[in-house]
Amino acid sequence: MRIKLTVEYDGTNYCGWQRQKNGIAVQQVIEEKLCRLTNESITITGAGRTDAGVHAVGQTVHFDTNATIPPDKFSYALNSILPSDIRISKSEGVSDEFHARFGAKGKHYKYVIYNYPHASAVLGRYSMHVPKELCVEKMQKAAEFFKGTHDFIGFSSAGRQTKTTVRNLSGIKISKKDRVLELDFYGEGFLYNMVRIISGTLVYVGLGKISEKDIPKIIESKKRENAGITAPPQGLFLWEVYY
Amino acid sequence: MRIKLTVEYDGTNYCGWQRQKNGIAVQQVIEEKLCRLTNESITITGAGRTDAGVHAVGQTVHFDTNATIPPDKFSYALNSILPSDIRISKSEGVSDEFHARFGAKGKHYKYVIYNYPHASAVLGRYSMHVPKELCVEKMQKAAEFFKGTHDFIGFSSAGRQTKTTVRNLSGIKISKKDRVLELDFYGEGFLYNMVRIISGTLVYVGLGKISEKDIPKIIESKKRENAGITAPPQGLFLWEVYY
Repeated sequence: MRIKLTVEYDGTNYCGWQRQKNGIAVQQVIEEKLCRLTNESITITGAGRTDAGVHAVGQTVHFDTNATIPPDKFSYALNSILPSDIRISKSEGVSDEFHARFGAKGKHYKYVIYNYPHASAVLGRYSMHVPKELCVEKMQKAAEFFKGTHDFIGFSSAGRQTKTTVRNLSGIKISKKDRVLELDFYGEGFLYNMVRIISGTLVYVGLGKISEKDIPKIIESKKRENAGITAPPQGLFLWEVYY
Repeated sequence: MRIKLTVEYDGTNYCGWQRQKNGIAVQQVIEEKLCRLTNESITITGAGRTDAGVHAVGQTVHFDTNATIPPDKFSYALNSILPSDIRISKSEGVSDEFHARFGAKGKHYKYVIYNYPHASAVLGRYSMHVPKELCVEKMQKAAEFFKGTHDFIGFSSAGRQTKTTVRNLSGIKISKKDRVLELDFYGEGFLYNMVRIISGTLVYVGLGKISEKDIPKIIESKKRENAGITAPPQGLFLWEVYY
């Protein structure tokens, strides 16, 4: 039987989603608990990898099992033995054709910025701190240029093989409430570090370090060094995966 | 010179605001850092005490110093040496008549509830988890009965002396967005654990364990055992102090 899990995690204490040599991975923790529950050796497949420190609200995974646990009870069974910074928010039975990674039609990432002279004691784990005031209007104008289909190679980090670096970014929404900016990214697929580099570039636009008008030129240049910084991992959330 | 600080903290790792025998208090940490900055022995006065695990966004304190640090720079100086779960969001010079506790005209507390069958990996530190669905409408009706001036002795814990247990609760606002309920309490003053006990009682109303119509009777009874549970500390924030 194939099971689909929706997984939420606080990435602060993990080396990322995928197994690494230098720390504990979220995937590994879930697999170990599944093994304990089912007495099977289970490998889970996630919709996407997240880096060390990156969080998820809607990471999605699938796995196969012969266990007799009802599909919707896997969430309760796993949550009773998982650490509190990893939660299964939903479990359900799916057809054998369902594939968490290859079946994903789109993803929603959220990047959170705390914009105030002093950092936040409460939101520090879950946001990038930008002390100088950001011009949200300029950031929104810049965001428009990222929408659509582009070669985003200048907004990606090396280290992961992909056939093409062309991606379609179907939407970016930027909203501000009090001191908190939320940058919402919607697209079919994303390159490695793409959301963090676009977020860092938008921060530079908001600070006036890059002009919003130069974004098309920067995209066309296909050069990583023309873009802004890679925004830090703790502001990033894999928010939802669409099937 | 008298200085006013606005203090934000994540209360998870502290035994509360005030010095205790069994752990590190937020007040103590700030006093130690002030001592290091000024070479003076400084005692700070907070607007209100918060219990172990309770958070603050707008705790307010005052202290006197002969140091020559400009008032608005205390925040930067303190933040450079404070742990990241305590932040000074503002510092300013005030007149010698200003008193953080006795000068407070009112306070705003926020109680956060995560209402979903499974706990949240991300919001777990900052909310009470209620797995069963809450009826927000019933809670809103019940909240109306708490408004105004009442003897809230049945909604307080023993342990702190007060001349009277009559308080005026000028407002309670309950809002829900997705899985998160926010209960906002506004009043001149609050009894010990009053916000947590009213929150716990409202949760019982939302679950149908207490009828919203019985709230006036429960208040009049002045008996702690007629109210609901004391909601756990991690959902509570001292949000703002008014002067």
